[in-house]
Amino acid sequence: MFNKDIVMNETMKTLLEHRTIRKYSDKDVDEKILEQILLAAIRGSTTGNMQPYSIIVNRDKAMKEKVAPLHFNQKAVTEAPVLLTFCADYNRIIKWCEQRDAETNGFSNMQCFIWGVIDAVIATQNACVAAESFGLGICYMGTVTYNAKELAKVYQLPKHVIPVTCITLGYPIENPPLTDRLPLEAVVHNEIYKDYTPQSIDMLYAEKENLELTKKLLEENGLDNLAKIFTEKRYTKKDNEYFAKQFMDFVEEQGF
Amino acid sequence: MFNKDIVMNETMKTLLEHRTIRKYSDKDVDEKILEQILLAAIRGSTTGNMQPYSIIVNRDKAMKEKVAPLHFNQKAVTEAPVLLTFCADYNRIIKWCEQRDAETNGFSNMQCFIWGVIDAVIATQNACVAAESFGLGICYMGTVTYNAKELAKVYQLPKHVIPVTCITLGYPIENPPLTDRLPLEAVVHNEIYKDYTPQSIDMLYAEKENLELTKKLLEENGLDNLAKIFTEKRYTKKDNEYFAKQFMDFVEEQGF
Repeated sequence: MFNKDIVMNETMKTLLEHRTIRKYSDKDVDEKILEQILLAAIRGSTTGNMQPYSIIVNRDKAMKEKVAPLHFNQKAVTEAPVLLTFCADYNRIIKWCEQRDAETNGFSNMQCFIWGVIDAVIATQNACVAAESFGLGICYMGTVTYNAKELAKVYQLPKHVIPVTCITLGYPIENPPLTDRLPLEAVVHNEIYKDYTPQSIDMLYAEKENLELTKKLLEENGLDNLAKIFTEKRYTKKDNEYFAKQFMDFVEEQGF
Repeated sequence: MFNKDIVMNETMKTLLEHRTIRKYSDKDVDEKILEQILLAAIRGSTTGNMQPYSIIVNRDKAMKEKVAPLHFNQKAVTEAPVLLTFCADYNRIIKWCEQRDAETNGFSNMQCFIWGVIDAVIATQNACVAAESFGLGICYMGTVTYNAKELAKVYQLPKHVIPVTCITLGYPIENPPLTDRLPLEAVVHNEIYKDYTPQSIDMLYAEKENLELTKKLLEENGLDNLAKIFTEKRYTKKDNEYFAKQFMDFVEEQGF
């Protein structure tokens, strides 16, 4: 995938060779390495340098076991030495403003929440890239938004703090192949958005639909195409709408 | 900031030396370099490998001038050779599902929108790190959510596509100092969230509040503390609530 005319650099290698790692060795993550990963996280861009996020670090086995069911008992949660949960956080900022006699209720809205989400994700992705540069593997736990309210209870999150992303960190004991991606032209638009036609959809999804992995999935699930795997198995309308309501109700309860 | 006991690697250097670049040379970004940056963007983790995002690439001067007012005429928008706008995008996925007789209305909810935001930001941050590894500078345009609806008109975004982040890209002609960040302990919580006390707030914000830059800001604005710079100058309650409503109304109009 890497163009031969370009001088490949270490960072590009790290980025292009990313794969999700779900199986980890027993080797712990050194405290100093973790510190560097966290420092890389907070060096990422942040809205007006407000840093409207917090990071919960779990290393304790009992804590990981406590949150594991909220991540649908995915093994990576308990088997990885480190679990990082990134939250949109205006609690700290509001407490600071309160103490400085500044307006405190200008942050209780969705604009601020969205900034919090964006900045938490920037920090998360920097942490992932930093971790991978040290030979660690990472896995995003999509389950974090499914059970945000319950995670908030376990982590004792105050108002204005919402879990947004969660990653597991550890040394890989698997080396899965790169997962496929749609060709660049499927997601990149020059100057303005070029909408898709039935022909372009067929063309852009052809490679993905013809993977051996896809064929296997269809057989296992008794379905006739990959789109249905998404809509009937992985992300059903009913589940999506249920989790959407759970999450947005919680965002409102938390003060946004 | 980098711990001397750790072997520094190129990727960590790139991450820790990030600064926002707003002034760019005339040198264009080579098409092959841009391609690598975009490939790095799409290698980032994505929910169920759905890639619910799109990237609009602007190089055309007329197009950059057209969107500049929507970014409050920040000079970087027209002066940078490349502008990338990352959108949460379910339009492509819905069209694909439609064509495969799969359920198409399971994506019109806030859970899917939030996935789109998260995945668009992961892609954006990967693009930023990749760009910086090639010696380019980047600047996030926070204005993208302020004027999402108007940007969508210019870019001809169909339903289910929402601009989320925007970055300028180019070769730096400035080398600003690293901006300050709160100390790690201000954002990192061990095992559970440790809420802030008046004492800890004072301690954690002390360095930031005592910067020369802060003192200069206070003088310029005739205010007695930094928190008020945020609440009275940069991000007022009135503005935040106005832009929150604009953005969320648009998210709903776009079908989420």
